[in-house]
Amino acid sequence: MIAKIVLDKKREGRALGSAEIREFIDLFTKGIIPDYQMSALAMAICCRGMNERETADLTEAMMRSGECLDWPFASADKHSTGGVGDKLSLVVQPLAAACGVHVPSLTGRGLGLTGGTADKLESIPGYNASLSLAEFRRVVSETGVSMTVQTAEITPADKKLYALRDVTGTVASIPLIVSSILSKKLAEGASALVFDVKCGRGAFMKTPAEAHELAAALVAGAKAAGRRAVALVTDMNAPLGCAVGNANEVAEAISLLKGERGGADVELCIELAAWMVALALPMELENARELCRTRLADGSAFAKFEAMVVRHGGNLARFAELRERPTFKFRIQAMRSGYITAIDAEKVARAALALGAGRLAAGDRIDPLAGVTLAVGVGAKVVAGAPLATLERSGDPDGLEKCAAELMKAFVIGSQPPPTGSLILETIT
Amino acid sequence: MIAKIVLDKKREGRALGSAEIREFIDLFTKGIIPDYQMSALAMAICCRGMNERETADLTEAMMRSGECLDWPFASADKHSTGGVGDKLSLVVQPLAAACGVHVPSLTGRGLGLTGGTADKLESIPGYNASLSLAEFRRVVSETGVSMTVQTAEITPADKKLYALRDVTGTVASIPLIVSSILSKKLAEGASALVFDVKCGRGAFMKTPAEAHELAAALVAGAKAAGRRAVALVTDMNAPLGCAVGNANEVAEAISLLKGERGGADVELCIELAAWMVALALPMELENARELCRTRLADGSAFAKFEAMVVRHGGNLARFAELRERPTFKFRIQAMRSGYITAIDAEKVARAALALGAGRLAAGDRIDPLAGVTLAVGVGAKVVAGAPLATLERSGDPDGLEKCAAELMKAFVIGSQPPPTGSLILETIT
Repeated sequence: MIAKIVLDKKREGRALGSAEIREFIDLFTKGIIPDYQMSALAMAICCRGMNERETADLTEAMMRSGECLDWPFASADKHSTGGVGDKLSLVVQPLAAACGVHVPSLTGRGLGLTGGTADKLESIPGYNASLSLAEFRRVVSETGVSMTVQTAEITPADKKLYALRDVTGTVASIPLIVSSILSKKLAEGASALVFDVKCGRGAFMKTPAEAHELAAALVAGAKAAGRRAVALVTDMNAPLGCAVGNANEVAEAISLLKGERGGADVELCIELAAWMVALALPMELENARELCRTRLADGSAFAKFEAMVVRHGGNLARFAELRERPTFKFRIQAMRSGYITAIDAEKVARAALALGAGRLAAGDRIDPLAGVTLAVGVGAKVVAGAPLATLERSGDPDGLEKCAAELMKAFVIGSQPPPTGSLILETIT
Repeated sequence: MIAKIVLDKKREGRALGSAEIREFIDLFTKGIIPDYQMSALAMAICCRGMNERETADLTEAMMRSGECLDWPFASADKHSTGGVGDKLSLVVQPLAAACGVHVPSLTGRGLGLTGGTADKLESIPGYNASLSLAEFRRVVSETGVSMTVQTAEITPADKKLYALRDVTGTVASIPLIVSSILSKKLAEGASALVFDVKCGRGAFMKTPAEAHELAAALVAGAKAAGRRAVALVTDMNAPLGCAVGNANEVAEAISLLKGERGGADVELCIELAAWMVALALPMELENARELCRTRLADGSAFAKFEAMVVRHGGNLARFAELRERPTFKFRIQAMRSGYITAIDAEKVARAALALGAGRLAAGDRIDPLAGVTLAVGVGAKVVAGAPLATLERSGDPDGLEKCAAELMKAFVIGSQPPPTGSLILETIT
């Protein structure tokens, strides 16, 4: 009966009651409401939308479908909606932990053009990204930060619904995206949440308006659930940093954690970690930024990363050896002199995927050494023949040239330097 | 792949291509596209609609999912969207056949408040409403008319989709209703189709505007498929005629076929049959009306009905005996004097359903002798204590009073006679 009432209401564009949403999700999780009713509701939500209160109710119902953690410490996590070369979690989470915030970070695996933080970490020999919930609790409590794949005990309703949305054309819906992201993050139990909503050619949200809508909904939803929250809308037209892959992204993250270079991506890392610290402890944002710069400069951010890797069974010495292993490489060069005015993140991601750095289908094996490493960033001045990027894979030289030809198309070289600036387009508090 | 493309398109409100619709329905019929994708598409169609061309394509795809009949004679059928006391098919189809039109009429069973013509016919002892398609062909060819339940070979896609729509809140959609009705009627192979679109308290379509929209879509769809078609929007605020049930409705239909009384319902029967004749033969509508009146008066309409019943194994003498069998009866009376200004068809239908004349769930057993027989119609003048209606059931006296109390609420008695007139609100050619 509840299914029919809920479906009729939402088809007609009416708002669902809190108890109706709770019961529908509960019965779906238990398998009493079948997939064909859930997919019809998902489609009705895509077409008719949900108001803030309904979205909050849906989020809470999904969160309560599984275990919910809580912590006796100041705690925070950062979530990115997914970008190309987005290794920022590897830097931001340990950095915030180095500032005294506990960071329980359940993360995901990559699919399609989006890389997964868990896959990147697993390119470190020995790193176990599949901790049990009990082990995760222990590592967060003792080391201050843990990054592992979401277990089956966390938001089973979301897992089930997400799989269904993927095959029923019901991914593109703000209330469904928000409740999926938020239910998992709320179940982690962190009292402060920072959202990095990516926007542009390499992101799910293509325009600033779409990204703003999602960012505002995430912040509103987190606040409705009693958490402190902020969202940054950030540029994802060009890849983040130089490396797009797995081992090469970890190597770049280590370099950032060691303070070996600056740049817009480093500034973004500091801003994201500073917000986590400012909201969680709490403290003034300006002071939190200062603290982050100090922790990066004094080596404690890298030390925190190292401690986490060790607790997860990872071995950074063996990772360094792995990086020395011979691979098949192909370098592409500038066809003309000028300024790099754009590097199309989506095209770079497609090249990395074709090389074996990602998965076309869930369960595909990843080549941890495969990937693209950019030699230049947007704004760089190049002469004809200068290196633009290197493509790399471990298994097989075949197809490298084809990937290289595709990757060439990602680079736009013009006569004038492009405007440059911060990656941060908007901050929503 | 096709499922994802189709679902994305319709979610975004874009029109689907003919080949896309054909392939989706074909794969759904074969079980390759699962229920959860079909229900998502049904919901997207409910929310975003379909244009005339898409509706025609959907109708054709569903029609072609099973066997399609065709006839070497002038042929026609009438379809009613379902009303309370709507026994008109029992009169109209034989009447048109008596005028020389072949009438292949696949009909349905009742569910909820809507009675089914097959259930009514099965109250005639021996009547087989489950002919094979071969037997149906033979009876139509030799007797000129057959009324039997749609077999599994006809529009299996509709059968599957209809069951799914019923449990996913996706019944209320003009393109889905049109394709469901039309695909079955087109598969019957009749070259002319007359639609009786019911409108009012006892009908699915509550307002003339909704009924007009459905009627126009049915006519457009039938014409797009190369058939001649007309739709009448008719009033269904009060029950049609006196009897609401099964055996009592058949008895009333026989009385109408024998020309024993006139009235607005008889005029509607003549109009519907005349349109079938006018479109199928073809001939002028006015001449077709004349022919129908003659065939009713000279007994040939009843003779055609009798011949059909005999061919289906039914026995009208045993039916007359059945009607003499003792039942539990309860008569309700007018509480005041005045004019009957309204008889709420929905409330009458609920009373008949509670008595056992219908099904709450598919597969429920029907009491053929259960039902309501009205003693008065809208416009009648009554004195306090005059009989309004009789409730009847064969099995069990318990609950009769409760049904009677509910039925009382269906009658509105006022001081002024209500305006009366034709049941036909609109004719769409």
